[in-house]
Amino acid sequence: MSFAALWERLLPVGRDPGTGGYRRFAWTPADADCRAWFLAAAAERELSSGCDRNGNLWAWWEPPGGPARPGPAGTARVPGGSAGAGVPIPAGAVVTGSHLDSVPDGGAFDGPLGVASGFAAIDLLRARGLAPVRPLAVAAFCEEEGARFGVACLGSRLLTGTAGPEVARGLRDGAGITLAEAMTAAGQDPARLGPDDELLAGIAAYVELHIEQGRGLAALDAPIGIAERIWPHGRWRLEFSGRADHAGTTALADRRDPMLPFAAAVLAARQAAAGQSALATVGKVIAEPGGVNAVSSTVTAWLDARAPEEPLLQAVAGQVIAAAREAAAGHQVAVEVAQESATPAVEFDQGLREALARSLAARGARAPELPTGAGHDAGVLAARVPAAMLFVRNPTGVSHSPAEHADRADCEAGVEALAAVLADLACR
Amino acid sequence: MSFAALWERLLPVGRDPGTGGYRRFAWTPADADCRAWFLAAAAERELSSGCDRNGNLWAWWEPPGGPARPGPAGTARVPGGSAGAGVPIPAGAVVTGSHLDSVPDGGAFDGPLGVASGFAAIDLLRARGLAPVRPLAVAAFCEEEGARFGVACLGSRLLTGTAGPEVARGLRDGAGITLAEAMTAAGQDPARLGPDDELLAGIAAYVELHIEQGRGLAALDAPIGIAERIWPHGRWRLEFSGRADHAGTTALADRRDPMLPFAAAVLAARQAAAGQSALATVGKVIAEPGGVNAVSSTVTAWLDARAPEEPLLQAVAGQVIAAAREAAAGHQVAVEVAQESATPAVEFDQGLREALARSLAARGARAPELPTGAGHDAGVLAARVPAAMLFVRNPTGVSHSPAEHADRADCEAGVEALAAVLADLACR
Repeated sequence: MSFAALWERLLPVGRDPGTGGYRRFAWTPADADCRAWFLAAAAERELSSGCDRNGNLWAWWEPPGGPARPGPAGTARVPGGSAGAGVPIPAGAVVTGSHLDSVPDGGAFDGPLGVASGFAAIDLLRARGLAPVRPLAVAAFCEEEGARFGVACLGSRLLTGTAGPEVARGLRDGAGITLAEAMTAAGQDPARLGPDDELLAGIAAYVELHIEQGRGLAALDAPIGIAERIWPHGRWRLEFSGRADHAGTTALADRRDPMLPFAAAVLAARQAAAGQSALATVGKVIAEPGGVNAVSSTVTAWLDARAPEEPLLQAVAGQVIAAAREAAAGHQVAVEVAQESATPAVEFDQGLREALARSLAARGARAPELPTGAGHDAGVLAARVPAAMLFVRNPTGVSHSPAEHADRADCEAGVEALAAVLADLACR
Repeated sequence: MSFAALWERLLPVGRDPGTGGYRRFAWTPADADCRAWFLAAAAERELSSGCDRNGNLWAWWEPPGGPARPGPAGTARVPGGSAGAGVPIPAGAVVTGSHLDSVPDGGAFDGPLGVASGFAAIDLLRARGLAPVRPLAVAAFCEEEGARFGVACLGSRLLTGTAGPEVARGLRDGAGITLAEAMTAAGQDPARLGPDDELLAGIAAYVELHIEQGRGLAALDAPIGIAERIWPHGRWRLEFSGRADHAGTTALADRRDPMLPFAAAVLAARQAAAGQSALATVGKVIAEPGGVNAVSSTVTAWLDARAPEEPLLQAVAGQVIAAAREAAAGHQVAVEVAQESATPAVEFDQGLREALARSLAARGARAPELPTGAGHDAGVLAARVPAAMLFVRNPTGVSHSPAEHADRADCEAGVEALAAVLADLACR
């Protein structure tokens, strides 16, 4: 089956007819349809498939004569496999994949491109008469975007133990439904959530293909790239507390309006990021009481900052917070700052990156290395197994938006690249 | 009964135990309790009372030998009355009052102070052996804040015909309930909404006492003041449309982030207002999609502006809109501006203002004249009947907030002032 046929079948699932964006949130009906698509793709390829204890899906292509695997109802178990000569990874399975969930009104490519490309790469390998010498799997990790329960990469974090099952079960969505309740309603047992060292121990390498979420490859005129590292990332909540007042009568000099230092902080964030070659974004703000004719009592805003290196990230955050405090003081507004998350840089496995580069160079494909500011399951898994990523060119750089797009030719180049990498890692 | 006793009885009604602020919204149970308080106060004073077709409450003190009025279930009807010598108003009733509803988390004084002071002033007049020579009424206008159905001064606008009954019936609250449904649920007939020319024709003057919502009187060291005029007022909606993007990967140069020109507009509004001795406020903002890790697709903000004169108001709005457009263009963000309301200046009746000043001066009370930026039922009624306002000092200027406060001595000075005015207008 072609990449196109696989892709077209998934396209309508969870798509909002109004915006054209996707609303594929974990353990919802749209998610169930995505899961059915995955299991059907596995079944059509005679891959044994199943959902692990953390809601992640696996589809296994065993080397000829290898052990049978449990079907869709069971938990995937990975034994060791024989490594090919010159392959820079230990014995064990080679896994590719990504995720199927979306941000609210997300694009079609962020996540699903990697999963569909995994299946399509297997089709290519088979069409070329190749078979694996070690287990080869396609995975789809659960709740990567954190769009429903607020923790990004939740499925891979639970698998690796960087998110605890007790806390995870109690996470609530916007309607107050816990993850445990949502899983139960979807026919999963939340009591089984937790790290799976046996599964991880059987994985020799994880290679995730993903649409690029910036214009790095477009600028380099390359359809495919290799991820070098993930920038360190921090999230801060800034709460500006002033005093509610009547907008029609309170003299400017008597106001303690938190909207003003908030606005100053927004502009300072852009300036600080530009000065450090970093990224800083304020995408969420809540003004209370929110009356059209009232000075706000509080304005709460969230700063998302990412930078090539940790000291630059700290410099950006420091400048924004200092500007917020200075502007707040000028308006007799209090400001409280809380860092909500701190994610250190992730260096992808050097040996694996070099192997990817060799596989692509051997086939005449140029694949520049580039860093990214986005978190991925590959970044979480990198703490436990050699991990790497392939990026597919995004001509506009737009992502987390219905307008996200990759050209079909570039998607097919991605499948070719992934097939080349999997052939060299798992098939010789 | 003293002002204090009347006041203390109303204080607990509709008070949020968490914030200490009031949530007295039209046609809710808290509103029904306010109405019961009003009718009880009228009954205790043997005033005939009732609710008019627009939900406004009236309590009538008739001149001895005057016609009986219908009770609480009926509609107030005002016949002409005899004017005293030297009184600068036509024949008819003298009405005082204000409103009982609140903004969300409003203060205790904005509105109720004028109604309670009206009853307390009648008590003072009676204690001094005075009786009216023309009808004297206390009124409480419905939905003055517009906090439930979005149209400020709705009760007085319906009465005077500046709001249409058909549109009013279809106004919806935040839960989607129409005014017609809310009135029906509260036992009122929404079919009867509409202008009441007969009622208006019988009113010779309206004098509203209100807590000041700024620090004008505090600065002048005066417990009581007389409103000169209401500033012109406008409300604009600014919608900044950019493009949703991933906060972790989209290069700053590739972004079309509407949060940035929004922030610039907030700061421009303060600067423009300061330059024109005007007021400008952004108290409501909605960022979509509102993700912590997403560049916004749109940011919608509301500008509230008021100024001493119409040209200054237009200058303020023009500067803010120009700054918004310029900043938006710099970020490839589109901006649409819609003026949602335009309220011209209101000049209070000069003859009535002078009469108030004479009444107070004759009793040795200093009452400076001052303008206000706030809308009031008196401003709506001024289009149809001679209207004026008394302000009571607000030591902090804080209003539309649980912290709103007036000293008890100043409230009692307000009752004295109102009694003096009513004595001279209606009792000699």
